[in-house]
Amino acid sequence: MTAPRATPSRKVYLTGSRSEIRVPMREIPLSGGNPPVRLYDTSGPYTDPDAQIDLKRGLPPLRLPWILGRGDVDELPGPTSSDRRRRDEDPALGGVRFASVRRPHRARPGCRVTQMHYARRGEITPEMEFVALREGMPPELVRDEVARGRAILPANVNHPETEPMIIGRRFLVKINANIGNSAVASSIEEEVEKMTWATRHGADTVMDLSTGKNIHETREWILRNSPVPIGTVPIYQALEKVGGKAEELTWDVYRDTLIEQAEQGVDYFTIHAGVRLRYIPLTAKRVTGIVSRGGSIMAKWCLAHHQESFLYTHFREICEIMAAYDVAFSLGDGLRPGSTADANDEAQFAELETLGELTTVAWDSDAQVMIEGPGHVPMHLIKENMERELEVCHEAPFYTLGPLTTDVAPGYDHITSAIGAAMIGWFGTAMLCYVTPKEHLGLPNKKDVKDGVIAYKIAAHAADLAKGHPRAREWDDALSKARFEFRWEDQFNLSLDPETAREFHDETLPAEGAKLAHFCSMCGPHFCSMKITQDVRDYAATHGIAEETAALVQGLKEKAEEFRKSGGELYRPA
Amino acid sequence: MTAPRATPSRKVYLTGSRSEIRVPMREIPLSGGNPPVRLYDTSGPYTDPDAQIDLKRGLPPLRLPWILGRGDVDELPGPTSSDRRRRDEDPALGGVRFASVRRPHRARPGCRVTQMHYARRGEITPEMEFVALREGMPPELVRDEVARGRAILPANVNHPETEPMIIGRRFLVKINANIGNSAVASSIEEEVEKMTWATRHGADTVMDLSTGKNIHETREWILRNSPVPIGTVPIYQALEKVGGKAEELTWDVYRDTLIEQAEQGVDYFTIHAGVRLRYIPLTAKRVTGIVSRGGSIMAKWCLAHHQESFLYTHFREICEIMAAYDVAFSLGDGLRPGSTADANDEAQFAELETLGELTTVAWDSDAQVMIEGPGHVPMHLIKENMERELEVCHEAPFYTLGPLTTDVAPGYDHITSAIGAAMIGWFGTAMLCYVTPKEHLGLPNKKDVKDGVIAYKIAAHAADLAKGHPRAREWDDALSKARFEFRWEDQFNLSLDPETAREFHDETLPAEGAKLAHFCSMCGPHFCSMKITQDVRDYAATHGIAEETAALVQGLKEKAEEFRKSGGELYRPA
Repeated sequence: MTAPRATPSRKVYLTGSRSEIRVPMREIPLSGGNPPVRLYDTSGPYTDPDAQIDLKRGLPPLRLPWILGRGDVDELPGPTSSDRRRRDEDPALGGVRFASVRRPHRARPGCRVTQMHYARRGEITPEMEFVALREGMPPELVRDEVARGRAILPANVNHPETEPMIIGRRFLVKINANIGNSAVASSIEEEVEKMTWATRHGADTVMDLSTGKNIHETREWILRNSPVPIGTVPIYQALEKVGGKAEELTWDVYRDTLIEQAEQGVDYFTIHAGVRLRYIPLTAKRVTGIVSRGGSIMAKWCLAHHQESFLYTHFREICEIMAAYDVAFSLGDGLRPGSTADANDEAQFAELETLGELTTVAWDSDAQVMIEGPGHVPMHLIKENMERELEVCHEAPFYTLGPLTTDVAPGYDHITSAIGAAMIGWFGTAMLCYVTPKEHLGLPNKKDVKDGVIAYKIAAHAADLAKGHPRAREWDDALSKARFEFRWEDQFNLSLDPETAREFHDETLPAEGAKLAHFCSMCGPHFCSMKITQDVRDYAATHGIAEETAALVQGLKEKAEEFRKSGGELYRPA
Repeated sequence: MTAPRATPSRKVYLTGSRSEIRVPMREIPLSGGNPPVRLYDTSGPYTDPDAQIDLKRGLPPLRLPWILGRGDVDELPGPTSSDRRRRDEDPALGGVRFASVRRPHRARPGCRVTQMHYARRGEITPEMEFVALREGMPPELVRDEVARGRAILPANVNHPETEPMIIGRRFLVKINANIGNSAVASSIEEEVEKMTWATRHGADTVMDLSTGKNIHETREWILRNSPVPIGTVPIYQALEKVGGKAEELTWDVYRDTLIEQAEQGVDYFTIHAGVRLRYIPLTAKRVTGIVSRGGSIMAKWCLAHHQESFLYTHFREICEIMAAYDVAFSLGDGLRPGSTADANDEAQFAELETLGELTTVAWDSDAQVMIEGPGHVPMHLIKENMERELEVCHEAPFYTLGPLTTDVAPGYDHITSAIGAAMIGWFGTAMLCYVTPKEHLGLPNKKDVKDGVIAYKIAAHAADLAKGHPRAREWDDALSKARFEFRWEDQFNLSLDPETAREFHDETLPAEGAKLAHFCSMCGPHFCSMKITQDVRDYAATHGIAEETAALVQGLKEKAEEFRKSGGELYRPA
């Protein structure tokens, strides 16, 4: 599970202004005198042959000195969540509990410890410097974007294991992978393995959406071993605490859950505070009603109590909790469309406006905010989503689920949604939440996780290319050049998924010699256009002019001139 | 291989003004009093339990009476291609030859037998009526679009087995699947099976790109058993005839090949007549040069002879051949970009202008024309391709390969290209040529063909939805409604790929009872948003008002009013 990729790529680190700022990259050496290509690497220490991996101890807390060095957090004597304390004392949980637990940190009274807070004070934190190196962007740009709320840098003080990353539209488009067990399937081991597997293939953050038993313990294992920020939807665990009865949820149970998870180190919370009582009737005539789990839970609560949800009425208190640990908001779109028929309707956009209002409230507390978006949206309605979000949510980063561009292909929703994800990423969405082939049908297994991650890496990279991100083109060009020059090994190694590329090639031409051949089984030797083009260039070179490009350009320009002068047009349009 | 789908969908036929106009549809009966859904069906007689299938005899020639009824074709005593006659007499080919061969038909001297010709005369042919029923569009619209060259109806008089279909942007977006052996892999049986397999899953046309041995015989087997139009690239076979040496190609060899294939029944030819001598130098500095097989062959020929290609200089003669059998042009984009770096460059657009000139020349002969398009294009450059094509090619239908929106994911190019295909389909492309996961790596097998077809059905349908095609929404809405109402069997049966949807669901919840459950393994019973929404609606219903929708809308609007009046805004944006 933790073996490095079976390719000649190697892990390298860029070093910042201090030696602990070590930014991981995957370096791919190329043949034929071509310079190596360095790619963004989300896989964490697992792909570093020098790293000592022990899932029972967790990853090294690389950010801990930076956090403590700021002198604005207290180490608490122990967890302050009452439910957490109860679980810690429960002997029945001994078998599943993560053993070596650090004491939680929390902002000192009167302090705010968010990256936005530091950024607004004009401070470039080590986290920001790390991110700047990682993205190839100036540190001041990172600081400015975080200060203005146009980007977030999720970095809970209790999750020092993360390698810092940034979510914002000036930066590379990021992707999130959802994992998590349900009451019906999967175990802790499987979930930890899905996390390392997802980040190995390129997930920038992971959401643990567990709803089964041992939610707390599963999350602890994931956090302690995760090199990427972890997000959750705290209402799921709160609901488990009240036996699955939405109407029995209370602010106290929810608040205790937020603190429990913040002290574990969750980096961002999805909070469906925009599901207001008056919006619920707007969903009544929809084809698919409310399809967000959190949204439907809150709608049920609101109806049962005939009042606004406690997420909305206690929003300022939530903000203070977020600011005390630096948990970022992911303001949930509880009323997102669940079918193309329901896209861009009144319910969806009414909630979006409320999310915009809440954003400014959160920013008052220096809490970081991103905004969740749909869902199911046909292509012609996608752009409006991005434009409205930027307008009503004051340019807070957008974080969308797909969107799926048609409802008719269950089993292939990684594709129906990669289309929408690529487009909305190009339009400005900062992070794309993946959809696996199992969406709508069942819980994803490892293969589904990989398929979802790969489809979304494609969408994100296609968006980076279309946005003109300076680093994006370099990768495409290196691969295409390798392809054109029949450097098969380079082509495989540069591929998003080198194993699959190599395996597909070898299905029809398994011999090692075929890796040097100037053709493949698709066309065979006579019909390889790339080979013929090279022949064309060679032909030009051997016919008198040394430099083949010059031969083509010069020799043929002459010919063409000649032809034009002699009245060469054979056909003129009617 | 030819068994009907293992789902309760059934084959039905819509009947036109005469009893032989029988338009196939797949009808999916639904439970719960919901009306059945009828979908466009490309699978041919193979999915009709009443059809007698015998691959050795081929499909019934359903269009033959219509063709003969027009009284404008002669039955020839035998094939007129010299190469064909040689092959027919070669005893070594006895084992692979298709046995029961009809005599070829050709336009009577002075006649043109193209659908465009009839359309321009104001005639609605049975083919046009068939298409109109199939698309749910007025026959006069079909005729008008074909007459104006904005749509083509590929229908070679020697391929009477086809069920007529139309390619044009006022109609459903179509997809093409490429099959064909190469010198390195696969057999005739495999190729025929790939054809029936591709059409089973939704391919609207199939291109036979065989380049290996027995090209002629492979094509005959495919044509006689194909219910969809077949396209080819005749230069491939011509090249085989001259031993793979591009410079030895001649107009005579090529012309004989066109006639050979036209008399077999090929419905459209890719002809790279736009590769002009003066454009070749424009490709010299590209990252990937010339990547079209046909394009590179013609470039090599042009360079070797220092003259314009015979495809360009003999274009009017080619048009007369096309018009004599009703073979449609697919004007090939020999200089399409093979990498995102080369997209939208001078070479590509120079060739496109020439294709526009050639279009008007072809129309002079009433020959039908579509225009081939790229290739590799990043998202932000896609729209320009469509706009230029419409402008310089006088609205002839566009037929694109993808485009791939990034080069970095070999092994997943069905996805990199489905993104571009969906977008360009929305912008107006009439047919999308699929790309399989094996693209750039090897020859696709059956699984790859299916994966490619499914990805492209998704792209085409997403485009239909975005274009607002009247029939497209119906399918999505029926599936989403089934999903919301937990009609699992209906959801599976309505899926683009029912087998996969069912299989994925059953991986985690195999019991038959789960097909009635109001949840799945993704979220489990407590967290199913759809279940909760239904609970919400039920809750509203049992609290005093009978009609649940009314309850929600009315009861909650009152609540919301109350709330608003009491000054319910808790937070106001700063």
